[in-house]
Amino acid sequence: MHFNNVSEPVIRRMPKYYRQLKILHAEGVDKVSSATLAQLMGFSASQIRQDFNCFGGFGQQGYGYSVELLLNEITNILALNKPYDAVIVGAGKIGHALANYNGFEEEKIYVKALFDIDPKIIGTVQNQKPIYDVRELESYIKEHEIALGIITVNRNSAQEVADRMVNAGIKAIWNFAPIDVVAKVPVENAHLSDDLYVLTYRMNND
Amino acid sequence: MHFNNVSEPVIRRMPKYYRQLKILHAEGVDKVSSATLAQLMGFSASQIRQDFNCFGGFGQQGYGYSVELLLNEITNILALNKPYDAVIVGAGKIGHALANYNGFEEEKIYVKALFDIDPKIIGTVQNQKPIYDVRELESYIKEHEIALGIITVNRNSAQEVADRMVNAGIKAIWNFAPIDVVAKVPVENAHLSDDLYVLTYRMNND
Repeated sequence: MHFNNVSEPVIRRMPKYYRQLKILHAEGVDKVSSATLAQLMGFSASQIRQDFNCFGGFGQQGYGYSVELLLNEITNILALNKPYDAVIVGAGKIGHALANYNGFEEEKIYVKALFDIDPKIIGTVQNQKPIYDVRELESYIKEHEIALGIITVNRNSAQEVADRMVNAGIKAIWNFAPIDVVAKVPVENAHLSDDLYVLTYRMNND
Repeated sequence: MHFNNVSEPVIRRMPKYYRQLKILHAEGVDKVSSATLAQLMGFSASQIRQDFNCFGGFGQQGYGYSVELLLNEITNILALNKPYDAVIVGAGKIGHALANYNGFEEEKIYVKALFDIDPKIIGTVQNQKPIYDVRELESYIKEHEIALGIITVNRNSAQEVADRMVNAGIKAIWNFAPIDVVAKVPVENAHLSDDLYVLTYRMNND
């Protein structure tokens, strides 16, 4: 499957459907109506039907959706039906937290190695994942056909790391440095603090 | 200042303006037009003017905005002009990464303590922050008038921790457990993996 021209807000809602359907599936629920999904997720039922229509609809809405079929469809849409190998550049606290996060392997995303510049940790192993010298980054990405590059270095080095990843053939970048990196491959710049600022706003305005 | 009825997408863009203006301010830029901001941020100039109008406008657009004044206004809107004390419940890898993240103190958000159930780490200190028994959570929140509760426990315990925080008087919750917690105070449920799923989508559809 390949989809074009799906709008950004719709794409960003798909992971939320995916999570909700995984929960329903784990609970053994067979069928779910757009009305029930709407109630569970805080979207309107018509929003949900519109979103699904961007990908062809997923079956007869009057009888409700099959949870398993819907989960399979969305798994395919999000391209989570195949494995991805990843590397983390920057073996600091955030790098370690991500290297230890079990949720990735549930989705068949495998962190194969970390890279750093610190000679004290190069050559050590973190949660069964080796930490290599960042000078080996390009050759490792090429040799192991790594798809996903995760950046957890500081603000000043993030763009350079992104450039090196792309030159070595990485397919997508997930950046945790507090600066937006740009690349010709898909990039997600995580800005954890943005959520925090929404919270401080709401604490004072809700 | 107190704002009502500002729409969710506008609120979510305010942290992005805040970050961009901090960068411009640090670079010594005095004035910025909505056109330049638009170019830097990938929004349209009219979007930016509309967003700012939700909060009263911020001065004459023909002459450009004063970066310093605009930054001050948005700092006030996001209520980042005052300090907040925070606690982290769950002193695992994510808890440690957050306890060590320096970006919080830049915004006057002070993580005062961590809480856990593991006797092996209770009583130890992490980056100058004590780790206490989670049984002391309520009394600590009350005694120290903690505003922000950060949850980094597992999926099964997250809602209970949120309930306990709210009962003890916490004002907002930032949840990193992979489940949506609900509370009568403002909550942000961080779902890091959602960004990752957008990446896997884009890798296959862009």
